[in-house]
Amino acid sequence: MTENRAAPPWQPVKKARAHELVIEAIEDRILSGALQVGDALPPEREMATSLEVSRAGVREAVRVLEAQGVLRSQPGAGAAAGTFVAALPRDALTRFLRLHVALSNFSIQDVTDARIVLERASASAAARRLDDASRATMIDALDRMDLPHATRDSFNEADTQFHLAIAEASGSALSAALTAAIRSAMKVPILRAAERTEEWPEESQRLRREHRAIFDAIDAGDAERAAELAEGHIRRAASVLFGLPVPAPQRR
Amino acid sequence: MTENRAAPPWQPVKKARAHELVIEAIEDRILSGALQVGDALPPEREMATSLEVSRAGVREAVRVLEAQGVLRSQPGAGAAAGTFVAALPRDALTRFLRLHVALSNFSIQDVTDARIVLERASASAAARRLDDASRATMIDALDRMDLPHATRDSFNEADTQFHLAIAEASGSALSAALTAAIRSAMKVPILRAAERTEEWPEESQRLRREHRAIFDAIDAGDAERAAELAEGHIRRAASVLFGLPVPAPQRR
Repeated sequence: MTENRAAPPWQPVKKARAHELVIEAIEDRILSGALQVGDALPPEREMATSLEVSRAGVREAVRVLEAQGVLRSQPGAGAAAGTFVAALPRDALTRFLRLHVALSNFSIQDVTDARIVLERASASAAARRLDDASRATMIDALDRMDLPHATRDSFNEADTQFHLAIAEASGSALSAALTAAIRSAMKVPILRAAERTEEWPEESQRLRREHRAIFDAIDAGDAERAAELAEGHIRRAASVLFGLPVPAPQRR
Repeated sequence: MTENRAAPPWQPVKKARAHELVIEAIEDRILSGALQVGDALPPEREMATSLEVSRAGVREAVRVLEAQGVLRSQPGAGAAAGTFVAALPRDALTRFLRLHVALSNFSIQDVTDARIVLERASASAAARRLDDASRATMIDALDRMDLPHATRDSFNEADTQFHLAIAEASGSALSAALTAAIRSAMKVPILRAAERTEEWPEESQRLRREHRAIFDAIDAGDAERAAELAEGHIRRAASVLFGLPVPAPQRR
């Protein structure tokens, strides 16, 4: 009788594709510190030869890392031309989150939860260290929301600017980038929801009042109040615009 | 005398590259809801014809969106083969942050600030809703850090698992994904710092004690204490491992 050993079934071997090998090679050099911001990559032809892959594979890898803000290609033939290691995480993060929010890979509730956590922290940090430039940007955004001829679209632009200015003023680059990317990813869903709202005049007035109150707390250096107001504002607006429940605020 | 008008200088027109046009076309359909998770893209040849770009351009666009976890390619020729809209943001976010942290596009201080904000929120949310599965994962991680033969590497694995389990237990998918991505992006820098630390036996004992205390607060449902302990732990460890200042904790 043959032994009935539980041999694992043969699984297909995952073939790494050429561009993935190139990405890995570039990532390894970045993670080890051998490639730093501003450094140039070798020309495409040279990389293809060294890594023994097609030039198409190298180009695909470069496109992927460009889209992540890790590489930047400067077209042309002069000394300034070529592909360089870059420091452009902001736009890449915003595009990434915008797509995954649109695909509901993150729900509006999830995004609202994350916004509350990040914007509470941004508002309280901003209250502790508001500088003149951020203050001016916030006031400009508030004034633009007050314009009598503001449309839902121009209001939404200024509203986004206000929240981004608070994030910038927090002084923490990664928190600010995340806050800004999440708020930017929500720009179109918020505009669509505003367009569906029948009571926009009342809602926009509430939003303006809430924004002014958040600004006043930040400007007065009241970190705790700025955080509470930011949370209350996001929760209330999410409930009106997206019909989300507004749980009683919890101490954090 | 000719009028000296301040005409703006001619700027080079930015040519959108073929793959960027394809990305835009796919993104537009995702943002409008016409493409949803699970939907198949038309075959590469067909897309190239419809969009009037080369097949290489289509392939580059697909690679970019694959790397963002927005598309997934299933090789082969059967009915299951093709390129599909996907829901894979986690790994993409982790890789993205890991690269930008390695490039110092976000400093260790920035990352520590963001970790504190997110992990305070995760710890307090986990304390309010701990389930058996997350509890078991946390206990397993704690036990693995206690193993007498734990190396810095295996300790770091279990340490990462502990923080990820708290993030998962918070029940907010985006916050959890961000927390997990940031903690994962810090895995190698933390390991390298641990390798440089001469007083590792003492430090690992402090880390184990802090982790147990955080777990006890979560398990006891004490949200506020869990948040305070998580913040204190991250601040103290960052000061030992990276020499960061440990400012007096501030009310949030």
